[in-house]
Amino acid sequence: MASKPSIPKGTRDFSPSEVAKRQYIMQIIRSNFEKFGFQPIETPSFENSETLMGKYGEEGDRLIFKILNSGEFLTNVNQNLSKAIKTALFNLRIAISKSDEESFDFDRYKEVFLDVLPKSIRQSKDIKFDENYINIERLAIDIWIRISEILLPNDELYNKLLLKGDEKEDNYNINILSSIIFGDFYFQLGTKYVGNYISEKALRYDLTVPFARYVVQHQNEIEFPFKRYQIQPVWRADRPQKGRFREFFQCDADVVGSTSLWQEVELVQLYDSVFSELGLKGVTIKINNRKILSGIAEVIGASDKLIDFTVALDKLDKIGEDGVKKEMLEKGISAEAIEKVQPLFSFTGTISEKIDQLSTLLSSSVEGVKGVEELQFICENISQLGLQNAILDLDVTLARGLNYYTGAIFEVAPPKEVAMGSIGGGGRYDDLTGIFGLKSMSGVGISFGLDRIYLVIEELNLFPETVTVTTKALFINYGLEEAKYAMKAITALRKAGIKVELYPDAAKVGKQFGHADKRNIPFAVIAGSDEILQEKYALKNLISGEQILLTLSDLMLKLQA
Amino acid sequence: MASKPSIPKGTRDFSPSEVAKRQYIMQIIRSNFEKFGFQPIETPSFENSETLMGKYGEEGDRLIFKILNSGEFLTNVNQNLSKAIKTALFNLRIAISKSDEESFDFDRYKEVFLDVLPKSIRQSKDIKFDENYINIERLAIDIWIRISEILLPNDELYNKLLLKGDEKEDNYNINILSSIIFGDFYFQLGTKYVGNYISEKALRYDLTVPFARYVVQHQNEIEFPFKRYQIQPVWRADRPQKGRFREFFQCDADVVGSTSLWQEVELVQLYDSVFSELGLKGVTIKINNRKILSGIAEVIGASDKLIDFTVALDKLDKIGEDGVKKEMLEKGISAEAIEKVQPLFSFTGTISEKIDQLSTLLSSSVEGVKGVEELQFICENISQLGLQNAILDLDVTLARGLNYYTGAIFEVAPPKEVAMGSIGGGGRYDDLTGIFGLKSMSGVGISFGLDRIYLVIEELNLFPETVTVTTKALFINYGLEEAKYAMKAITALRKAGIKVELYPDAAKVGKQFGHADKRNIPFAVIAGSDEILQEKYALKNLISGEQILLTLSDLMLKLQA
Repeated sequence: MASKPSIPKGTRDFSPSEVAKRQYIMQIIRSNFEKFGFQPIETPSFENSETLMGKYGEEGDRLIFKILNSGEFLTNVNQNLSKAIKTALFNLRIAISKSDEESFDFDRYKEVFLDVLPKSIRQSKDIKFDENYINIERLAIDIWIRISEILLPNDELYNKLLLKGDEKEDNYNINILSSIIFGDFYFQLGTKYVGNYISEKALRYDLTVPFARYVVQHQNEIEFPFKRYQIQPVWRADRPQKGRFREFFQCDADVVGSTSLWQEVELVQLYDSVFSELGLKGVTIKINNRKILSGIAEVIGASDKLIDFTVALDKLDKIGEDGVKKEMLEKGISAEAIEKVQPLFSFTGTISEKIDQLSTLLSSSVEGVKGVEELQFICENISQLGLQNAILDLDVTLARGLNYYTGAIFEVAPPKEVAMGSIGGGGRYDDLTGIFGLKSMSGVGISFGLDRIYLVIEELNLFPETVTVTTKALFINYGLEEAKYAMKAITALRKAGIKVELYPDAAKVGKQFGHADKRNIPFAVIAGSDEILQEKYALKNLISGEQILLTLSDLMLKLQA
Repeated sequence: MASKPSIPKGTRDFSPSEVAKRQYIMQIIRSNFEKFGFQPIETPSFENSETLMGKYGEEGDRLIFKILNSGEFLTNVNQNLSKAIKTALFNLRIAISKSDEESFDFDRYKEVFLDVLPKSIRQSKDIKFDENYINIERLAIDIWIRISEILLPNDELYNKLLLKGDEKEDNYNINILSSIIFGDFYFQLGTKYVGNYISEKALRYDLTVPFARYVVQHQNEIEFPFKRYQIQPVWRADRPQKGRFREFFQCDADVVGSTSLWQEVELVQLYDSVFSELGLKGVTIKINNRKILSGIAEVIGASDKLIDFTVALDKLDKIGEDGVKKEMLEKGISAEAIEKVQPLFSFTGTISEKIDQLSTLLSSSVEGVKGVEELQFICENISQLGLQNAILDLDVTLARGLNYYTGAIFEVAPPKEVAMGSIGGGGRYDDLTGIFGLKSMSGVGISFGLDRIYLVIEELNLFPETVTVTTKALFINYGLEEAKYAMKAITALRKAGIKVELYPDAAKVGKQFGHADKRNIPFAVIAGSDEILQEKYALKNLISGEQILLTLSDLMLKLQA
C-alpha cells in the first residue's frame, strides 16, 4: 500500500482530547439517566435484516448498511439458487411440452408456476435453502419475474426452452438458460429484491427498533414499566455532509409499559438536568402533542395538508402573517380554514395562556381537547416543580415523527447564541412493540444528539479544562540508574491514583521537556544523581517554571492537590 | 412478523445488570490505562476493506465481516462489469479472427489480453470504474480466469465466440456469452476474489490494525512516543461457541515509537494494577521473548519445528518428560537436539534462576542471548519494584503471536481455582506500522479479555454489590395529589444526586411494592394524605421492614448515606 491510508467517508477517528470531551458529555448523560431511574441495556451492532427492514420506510431501508454473508453461506446459496432456477426451467418446459406450444398462455401458467415451484424446491433432495432466511414463495416470484423479463421476450432463448428430443442438447440448453437467469439475478443486485439472497444481517439504524425487539424478546424477564437507557453507535448510509456522519452515537432514554403523563414531566426535567450539568443556559425544550396537530387538522378540515400547514406557520417570524397565509393558500388550504385558526397567528404569551387559546380553538375536536389536557398536565406540573435552566415552550409547529408519535412531541433547541438545529428530541408512541407482535405497549422517550451537543459546548467554550488533562507529571529519564529511582516513585504515586509517566528513553533533556509541553503535562519531575543522593525529587511547574525539592511523600501530596 | 424476534447467532443482548458489571470492569481498566499515561482514541467501526484485508492471514480474511455496497453503487458496478466482460469477449474474438482459428494459442494470448483489456476498459467512454475501489488489472485477470474456465473448454460456447459474419447474430452471441460469464462471476461470490466488486468496507477485526492505520494517517499530529488505549467492539465471523462471540469488546493499551524496555516493565505493572483493583488474587502474568524462542530453534537446529517443540514441551505437567520427548521425536525433532535442551525439562525455580539456566543454554545463539538480556531487565526491575497481587512467571512454551511479535510475549492466566484460558495477552512488534508504509516504528502492547474477566469475577463472586444497585428508593404513587407531593421531594433529591423514582401509575399498592422488590430497590417512600398533612415522608426499609417518618431534609440525609 503506497498511498497514505484513510477511513471511509462519513466516518471519523477521534483523537485523545476528542474522546475525553465526548466521554465527559456521555458520562453526564449517563449519570442523569441513572439518577432518573433509567437502567442501561446494550444490543448487538447488527440485527437480523428482517428486524430492521421495513421499519423506517423505503428511504430508511435504502440507508441501512447490509452485511455480506460469509463465503461458505454464499457458495451454498448460489448453488441452491442455480439449482432452483434449473428446476423452474424444467417445470416450465414440461408445461409447454404438454400444451399446444403455439398458444401456451404464460399469464395463466404463472399461477401454476408459483404454486408448483416452491413444492418442487422443497421436495428436491438436491436443493437445501435455510427457510429462516430465504422465503421460497418469494424466490419463486423472483424467478418468474426474471424469466418473464429475460427469456420469454427473446425468441432464440425461448426456443432453447422447447424440447428438441436430444437429451444432451436439451440439458445443455437448460444449463445455458439457467446461467443467464442466474447472472441476471445478480445484475439486479442494486435493486432491493436480491439483497436477501446474499445478506441476512444489517447494522442497526437507530436504538428504538432494537429496543422494541429487546422488549418483545425478553418480555418475560422484564419488570414493567421498564425504564431503559442506551448509549451506542448507529450507522446510516446517508450522503455524508457537514455534521452528518455514517456512524454516530445515539443516547436514548425510554419508558415502556405505562401511559402515565408523569413520564413526560420527568423527561422534561431530565433534559433540564443534563443541560444544566453541562453548563448550558438558555436551552429551549419545545413541546407539542400529536393530538393537538390532529385537532388543528380537523379544524382546518384537511388532515393531508397538516405538514404544509405547520411548515408554513413555522415561518411566521421570517415572512410575517401575510406571507404565511399566502403560502397556505398556495398549498391549497382554504381561506375559510385559515380564518378558523386565526389565533395561531398571534400565538404568544405564557404557556398557560397559549394552552387557554388552544383550548378554545380546538374545543370542537375531541382529539384536540385530549391533546390540550395532556399538555396542560405536563406544563402545569413542570411550572410547579420548576426547571433549573431550561425554558419549556409550547410550539404548535413542532411536527417531528408525525408517523409514529401519538402523544407528546419534544424537541430541544440550543441557546440562541449558537446557530444550530435541534440537540435533542423525542415523544410518545402508543404502540412501540406492535411491529414485533406485542400489542398495547405505550412508550415515551427522548434522545440526546451527542455530536451537536459537543459542537455547542465547544463553541460556547464550556468544556472544563480538567476534561483533557491527562498525565499530571512527566519524570525526566537521565539514564538507567536514575530511571530505576524514578520508577520507584512512579509506582508509589500510581498506587495513590496519581497519573504520572516516565519518559521511556534517556533522550536529550530538551526533547523530553518538549514532549511534556506538547502533551500539556503541567509538571516535570527531575531526579538525577544529586536528587538521588538526597533521596528527593525536584518538581518543576512547567507553566511558572518554579522548581522545588521534595521528599516522595511531599511530592505525592503536591501532585494529589 | 409472527414469530418472536431474535438476534443473530454469536451476538448478545446485555441486560441492565450485565451492562453495569461490564461497565464496572471497563471503568477500572480505563482508569488504570489513564493512570499509566495512556490516552484514549476511537476509530470507526468499519474501515476500507484494503486497510484490513491481507493483514490477518487467509483465515482472518475469511472471518472479516464485509459490508455490502449500497444499491446505487452496485447497479453501477454491475453495469460496468457487464460492459467490461463484453469488451473482453470482443477483444478475444478479434484476436481469434486475425489468427488461424484452428491453432489460436490461448496461453500465449493471455499476456496480450491482460495488457490490452485494462487499456480498452480505461479508454472506453462507456465503462467507468472507480479505480479507488476496483483494480482494473486484477479485474482483467478475474475475467480471464472465468473465460478460460467456462468458455474455452466448451465447444458450443467457444463456437459462439467465432465470427459468423451476421452482425446481429454475432452481437447476440456475445451478449449470451457475457451473461454467462457475468453470472459465473457471482456464482463464485463465495470465493474471495469477487467480494471486492460488491463490498468496499469491512467491520474492524481487531484494534491493532486500525491503530497502526491511525498512527500512519495522523503521524504529523501525534507526539511520539504515543501511548494510546482503545476500548471498542470488534467483529469476527467465527463459528460461535461457548465463550466465543461474533461481536466482543477489546481493551488494548499500546505504546508506539520507543524501544525502551521500561514499557514492558510498566505493562506488567499495569496488568497487576488492574487485576488487583478488580480484587483478583493469584493472577499469573506469563512472560517469554520471541528471541528466546528463536534461540531455542537455533539450538535444536530446526526453526520449522519450533511450534511442535513448544506445544510438546507445554504438556510436561500432563504427560511427563518421557511423553514429551516421545512426541518431539514423533514430530521429527532429533534425539540429539532434545538432548541439547535437556535443562528445559527441569525448568523450575525463581525467575532469576530460570534466566540463569536459559543464559547457559542459549549462550551459542546471539539472538537467544539478546532475549535473555531483555527478559532479565524486565524481571529484575519488576522484582525490585514489586507487584501487588500478580505473579510474574517465565514460560518458555509461551509462543503466541509468533508471526508478528519480535520481543516480549505476555499472557495472563486467571487464578488457579478458575478453569479458564488466558484473560489477557500482548507483546512487542518491531514493525507495527510498516504495513501502512511507516517504517521503524516499534510498538508494544497488551490486551484485556473483557468477556473472560467478567466470567472469572462472576465465578469468584467478586463483583461489589453496589455495582448493580441502581435506584435507591421508589416513591409509592397514591394518586394525583400525592404524586405531586412526591414529585417535589423527588425533584429535590435528584438535584442532590440521589437516584429515586416515582411509580408512574396509581396502581394497587401491592403491585408497586412488588415492583420495588423485583427491581431490588432497597427503600420505598410512602407519602399519602397523612404524611402530606404532617409535611413528612415515611421511609420504609424493604429488607428489614422498618419504617420511619422523616422531613424532606432528613430523608435526603438518610438516602445519601
